[in-house]
Formats: sequence, C-alpha cells, structure tokens
Amino acid sequence: MNRTKRIIELLSKLPGVGEKTAQRYLLFLLTSDEATARELGAELAVLRDYLKACQRCGNIAEVESPDEKHVLCTVCTDNKRDATLLCVVARVTDLLAIERAGSMRGRYFVLGKLLSPLEGIGPDELPLERLVLRIKEDGVREVIVATPPSVDGEATALLLKRELGPLGVTVSRIASGVPHGGDLEFADPITMSRALAGRQRL
Amino acid sequence: MNRTKRIIELLSKLPGVGEKTAQRYLLFLLTSDEATARELGAELAVLRDYLKACQRCGNIAEVESPDEKHVLCTVCTDNKRDATLLCVVARVTDLLAIERAGSMRGRYFVLGKLLSPLEGIGPDELPLERLVLRIKEDGVREVIVATPPSVDGEATALLLKRELGPLGVTVSRIASGVPHGGDLEFADPITMSRALAGRQRL
Repeated sequence: MNRTKRIIELLSKLPGVGEKTAQRYLLFLLTSDEATARELGAELAVLRDYLKACQRCGNIAEVESPDEKHVLCTVCTDNKRDATLLCVVARVTDLLAIERAGSMRGRYFVLGKLLSPLEGIGPDELPLERLVLRIKEDGVREVIVATPPSVDGEATALLLKRELGPLGVTVSRIASGVPHGGDLEFADPITMSRALAGRQRL
Repeated sequence: MNRTKRIIELLSKLPGVGEKTAQRYLLFLLTSDEATARELGAELAVLRDYLKACQRCGNIAEVESPDEKHVLCTVCTDNKRDATLLCVVARVTDLLAIERAGSMRGRYFVLGKLLSPLEGIGPDELPLERLVLRIKEDGVREVIVATPPSVDGEATALLLKRELGPLGVTVSRIASGVPHGGDLEFADPITMSRALAGRQRL
C-alpha cells in the first residue's frame, strides 16, 4: 500500500487534516466522479507555477506563464479601485474575507505577520518600509488597519498608527463589537466593552 | 481569479470541506514547501489509474498498470491470512479501521451499503450472492459481522445471520459496549444496556 500511504501522508499535511480525514478524502476521490480527482490533481500539480504572490499587495495573483515578470493581482490591476484608500491586513485569508463582503473600494497591503512580543516578532520584522513606499507612490490618503481584534492585531494597529501618522495619512481601524446576528447575551466582556466604546450617534 | 476559483471549487467537493476550508488548503499549498503541492497534484491526477477496488473484497488495491486485469489488495494476496475467517464491513473506512487495530487475522468483504428501510435500501441491493459465493469458494467457517452498531448496521447483521446461517457457517457479531478509556458516567443508555447484555464471565 505504498501509493495509498503516500497520498494519505500528503493529504495529512493540509492544515487541520489528520490521518482519518485524509483517508476520508482519499476514499471520496476514489469513489466519486473520476474527473474530480484528475482535475484536482492536475490543478494542484501546477498550482505553484500559475498562482503567485502579487508584487504590490501580497494577494494571490494568477499569471499566464510561470516566467511572468510582473505579477499583479486582480485588485491591483482594477482601475476602478480607489488607490488612495489602502487596507492593511495580516494575511491573504483576511483580504479574501474582506473581498467577500464586497464593500471595500480601495486596495490592500498584506503584512504577512503581526507584531508579537510573545513570539519574538518585533517591528523590524514587519514590511513597514515597503508599506511606507507604497503609501507615497500611490498617494494614499487613508489607511484602514484591518488586523484582527486580538492582542497582536491591536499591537500592530498601534504600531502602524505611530509609524504612519507622521506621513500625514489618516489611519483608521475597523470596528470591533457584537457581530451581525449575534446575541448580546453571549458576547464576551471585551467585545461588549468595545461595542459600547465604539458606539455611534444614530 | 478563474484558476483560484476553480481550485477552491474542486477542494470544496471533498467531504466536510466548505469554501473557507478550501481556501485555507489552497493558501497552505501556496505557501508551504513547493514539492508538496506538486507531488499531491501528481498523485491525485493518476489516483484512479493506480488505486482500484479489490475484485475479491472491495478494499483499496494498488495496481502496477492502469490496464491490470486481476485487481487484488494486499489483504487478499497475503497468504498468512486465514481465508476461513471472513469479516463483513459496510465501508472501506471500516476495513481500514479494523486493520489499524492489527488483530484481525482473516480477510474481508465490503458490503458497500447497509440495509436501510428508511432510505429504501432493501436486501436485494446488498451483494449477498457475491458474499455467499465467496464463503463457498474460500471454505469460510466464521463470518464476523462488523457493521456499525446503528439501526441500519444491526438490521444488516440480522439479515446476514438469516441468510448465511443455513450455509453452516458461524455468524458472529463484534461487541458493542463502553469504549476503552470511556467513562461509564457518559455512556448513553443503549450502549450501557449493550455492555450489560454482552457481559462475559471473568
């Protein structure tokens, strides 16, 4: 069972996937529509050739050929986007989540990591120079800091406020509070305090 | 983002995987070791050529060439296994779970489905003829029914007892009770009743 074992090993590398889930995936691929396994395999085999990090923002960008020099994502090449509004996120998944909401009309900058004293990640490890350059090049007027409302995310937001403030750009922070459809009864004390502190006049 | 979208679509077909999990898998494959994505892709692309259902038991069998006529799994070709002891399971995953335990010295027969009056699956849809043939061919002396201890699993076990009994084979059923390491306090009433009814003299 060498091939079976190897496939299960490879599938187990996926985040959150253990041996049993890998086995379930394998059995699904063996019993469902044959084209699914073939197409998924073909796509994954060339994934790294055709999906790259956008050179400007870090988003996933598709290229026509593996040798393409200028790798830009669809957000960065979309001329209808407001280049003066820049949303800073920690990870590509956060960018995709914001895009799903469909209300962001500016562009993005993916930090790749957050300030984390506990993990030994200091300000020098964040791409602040590239961010400042981007702000100057694009004539950015507002930076929306969309790092997560966690300890590291808040620390990063404060760092960005301190570093970017002197450039004369508005630095704003996404709201934190009770989520849509959420029950006040189940909101934790920090979320509730934030919802109160962030209240707006009706 | 056509390629990205398509890969997420394909990954979302995996059991229990939604759009967000698919996205996480994609980002992992884009950022981890490049060889992982390539090798996983290559393996999945030819999965259906080299992994087939064993003609005798239904287990996963590896073949050297996609055209191989005699598809037999490692359990069926293992001469050290006792051919007269046959374990009947509902699905390949159950077979693999039993193999993980390492104490089964016989061979297997995968039913593929369970008797399910609610889903309209009657006795005619189970491969009983093939099972009877297998029992006769191999000179099976004991059939261990390892269908799950659910309503459908029990119904199937009773059906097998009725159909196979007249062949003169011993039909046994795996034990159902409080699992190893399980707490009696949290066992449900049916499991507890079964544990009591299935008690054995020490």
